[in-house]
Amino acid sequence: MNATLAQLEAVIRERLTADPATSYVARLNSKGLDAILKKIGEEATETVIAAKSGDKGQVVYESADLLFHLMVLLAAEGLSLDDVFAELQRREGVSGIEEKNARTS
Amino acid sequence: MNATLAQLEAVIRERLTADPATSYVARLNSKGLDAILKKIGEEATETVIAAKSGDKGQVVYESADLLFHLMVLLAAEGLSLDDVFAELQRREGVSGIEEKNARTS
Amino acid sequence: MNATLAQLEAVIRERLTADPATSYVARLNSKGLDAILKKIGEEATETVIAAKSGDKGQVVYESADLLFHLMVLLAAEGLSLDDVFAELQRREGVSGIEEKNARTS
Amino acid sequence: MNATLAQLEAVIRERLTADPATSYVARLNSKGLDAILKKIGEEATETVIAAKSGDKGQVVYESADLLFHLMVLLAAEGLSLDDVFAELQRREGVSGIEEKNARTS
Repeated sequence: MNATLAQLEAVIRERLTADPATSYVARLNSKGLDAILKKIGEEATETVIAAKSGDKGQVVYESADLLFHLMVLLAAEGLSLDDVFAELQRREGVSGIEEKNARTS
Repeated sequence: MNATLAQLEAVIRERLTADPATSYVARLNSKGLDAILKKIGEEATETVIAAKSGDKGQVVYESADLLFHLMVLLAAEGLSLDDVFAELQRREGVSGIEEKNARTS
Repeated sequence: MNATLAQLEAVIRERLTADPATSYVARLNSKGLDAILKKIGEEATETVIAAKSGDKGQVVYESADLLFHLMVLLAAEGLSLDDVFAELQRREGVSGIEEKNARTS
Repeated sequence: MNATLAQLEAVIRERLTADPATSYVARLNSKGLDAILKKIGEEATETVIAAKSGDKGQVVYESADLLFHLMVLLAAEGLSLDDVFAELQRREGVSGIEEKNARTS
């Protein structure tokens, strides 16, 4: 995995059970699954708004927020980005993603 | 970047302008930005539903769909996951993400 | 309740258990709660996209779709728009909605 | 229109241009269209979460929030719920909604 993502995933996992007073991830996780899921919905909407605004810098910013909170969800569920990468590969290789999606769209 | 992601990003970029009759990515891109954004909203909702169902396999599946369509959006906008990783790092290092979020939450 | 809404609610309730081959509502309901919830997420995203496109006609169209599917959800849950109206009134009268929201925003 | 909705719509329209220091609607509107749209996305996600939690009281609460913010959007756009009701009726009568949706699903 990319060094940024691997390091970020390690930090997120460590912070999940940290003191909510000092860590955003700990605070979010202490509120429970629903709080994390609300952030997924929020950041997805903000990514849509940024793209419709034609603001590429904001698209990057909101995409980072969305990816970050998706990683918090995966960590809270005991899952990892590697599980997601394996799923992307399982789809019969990268070109298979195309084929699978072509069939089901 | 992780080999899966780098390869997937290359495939997505190549397919953006392929024949819509043979490629899902080309077909989606040919419908315009709104069609891609609808998929972002859809996959985010499906990720939320999967997590609330307590189905970890489905969380992985929907997270893969969400990440995939986020990459299609980035590619369609002339952006890349590396821009998103740089944003995650720009937040004063990985630990800085914690600090930034702590301030703004 | 407005005649359109009352009539629409009655039709939706009747169709929930109709033959999925002849009714959209029956078909959607036969797929289960998740299918209805996916539509809520989808139509909310499409409302956002329409508003960002500056297309007022499309905002009306997508708002109608969103309200329609919210009514399907309420009916499938054995709830009604009147429960929602009572909740809006319960917030200490209509002006109370302002006050409540002012306190919690 | 239902008395609650008509009264609420009148209040929302009046508050759109009120002092942001004293009105939630004025404060939200003063932040611009994107702020209203973020609330649409948020409340839709919270409605999904409430339904998946099997909490009917919360479904009513979040549906009220979603409907309220949809009305703020319509008011901010110079539109009304009556435009939405007309769209629902335009679909060839209430039963026509079924038919239209059956064709396009």
